[in-house]
Amino acid sequence: MTGTRHPTAAQLAAADPETLLPASLALERHGRVAILRLSREAKRNALDDATVLGLERFFSAPPAWAHAVVLDAAGNHFSAGLDLSELTERDTLEGLEHSLMWHRAFARIEQGRLPVVAVLRGAVVGGGLELASATHVRVAEPSAFYALPEGQHGLFVGGGASVRVPRLIGVHRMADMMLTGRVVDAQEGQAIGLSHYLVGAGEGLKKAVELAERIAKNAPVTNFAVLQALPRIAEANPSQGYLLEALMASVASGSDEAKTRMAAFLEGRAGKVGGATDTPDAGRAGGAAS
Amino acid sequence: MTGTRHPTAAQLAAADPETLLPASLALERHGRVAILRLSREAKRNALDDATVLGLERFFSAPPAWAHAVVLDAAGNHFSAGLDLSELTERDTLEGLEHSLMWHRAFARIEQGRLPVVAVLRGAVVGGGLELASATHVRVAEPSAFYALPEGQHGLFVGGGASVRVPRLIGVHRMADMMLTGRVVDAQEGQAIGLSHYLVGAGEGLKKAVELAERIAKNAPVTNFAVLQALPRIAEANPSQGYLLEALMASVASGSDEAKTRMAAFLEGRAGKVGGATDTPDAGRAGGAAS
Repeated sequence: MTGTRHPTAAQLAAADPETLLPASLALERHGRVAILRLSREAKRNALDDATVLGLERFFSAPPAWAHAVVLDAAGNHFSAGLDLSELTERDTLEGLEHSLMWHRAFARIEQGRLPVVAVLRGAVVGGGLELASATHVRVAEPSAFYALPEGQHGLFVGGGASVRVPRLIGVHRMADMMLTGRVVDAQEGQAIGLSHYLVGAGEGLKKAVELAERIAKNAPVTNFAVLQALPRIAEANPSQGYLLEALMASVASGSDEAKTRMAAFLEGRAGKVGGATDTPDAGRAGGAAS
Repeated sequence: MTGTRHPTAAQLAAADPETLLPASLALERHGRVAILRLSREAKRNALDDATVLGLERFFSAPPAWAHAVVLDAAGNHFSAGLDLSELTERDTLEGLEHSLMWHRAFARIEQGRLPVVAVLRGAVVGGGLELASATHVRVAEPSAFYALPEGQHGLFVGGGASVRVPRLIGVHRMADMMLTGRVVDAQEGQAIGLSHYLVGAGEGLKKAVELAERIAKNAPVTNFAVLQALPRIAEANPSQGYLLEALMASVASGSDEAKTRMAAFLEGRAGKVGGATDTPDAGRAGGAAS
């Protein structure tokens, strides 16, 4: 497969998604959850053009049966980043275009139709961290480590890290990582916000699939609101933000899905939020306390 | 009391604040600190229209004697959120107006005259978290737990959470809470910034009153600057922000209050900032070490 062919949207929608995937991406169906796996283990899942363009194609027209995605990686490393062997062949303008291509691909993930849960282990480095930060929920195993070695190579990030990573951990922490080459371990990454969940060794995929299955049960309007509206509201000036929130809330609560779910809730057929566990149905055991 | 009567500003200022409060809000005076208590324990302090409008009236014209407020809650839960039994009766436009009403009420808290310290225990859920995030300082007990179950109900937040909560914990953590229904416990809530203080069981009110008493001793210009200027400066573009800061600092340091306080400090009659404890008078015990 070549990395530069651009199928039309109609072709994409009609095609079997698997036929559009490069060899470096494997797709597995798990009910309504699509497990997409970086599969270039010998290269620690380094991101070459074919892989990045494959991600763009997949998230531009994900399979209709999928309601959530788990982004996993083969082997012991999520991704060691940009495939440096491709880098040396580019002149300045080609480098600029390459960066914009990554931005386009990762924007398809971040602003796509499907919530994406990433499983992080081993190297989440450079472009690997850029890819991880474009997903919506990150589950880390204890082997995960994070770094932005671009600084040590005389480079700068080019896959969106300077926009997305400061929103996760603050500009000041990203500056430290780039200036000093600091490697952040899984524990520290969890504390500062690079991951949302820290689980035991080998438990990342199971946890991610559980979360994705829970997400797949949400009303589509809620997942739309969280992926499309929430980030824009949070970035808006507050007076515009409040109006956007009110409009989004009004659209959601006016949906048939919301009315059905609320009726079920009020009739006691759905759980209340409880404090004892992290499952949304925890309140059930305690009965209708309110 | 009806939730829809809107007294004029003059009526509000002239009236005894207690007569304007709904049954679901109780007021207690503690020196210069007003303790306002959500008092709908049987409903886990669910926020109905009367309560939200009562909060708006109170914070629009708080009692003149009050220099700080503690927002407490009766029973084992701060607030389980929106009173859902009211929700199903609204059409889309009414839902939009309801959301804007909450925004107005909570803006009176956040941008009002009085610093507000909230005491969080048990459920701080949905609208309860939206209310808590509009206060200025949050003290949590170990029983506190936080969630945004709107996602599970096919809804979206409508009381300002999509504007305020990302500023506390980042968009990405709020997205996780809404997508997965995650319940955040008191310890995690403290780590990620939902609370400022985590105290022992039953100690929240005492700590909050201590903090409010300390706040009440500040020069009014300082409390004004922190409530009105600081958030706007932090949101401004830096070149406007620095000018706003300089203007605010100049207004504060030019005040008679600041001159009196600085003279006392320079004469050694006021405490220095100490590193050993979190009390502002800690420097005293150590003498004039610096």
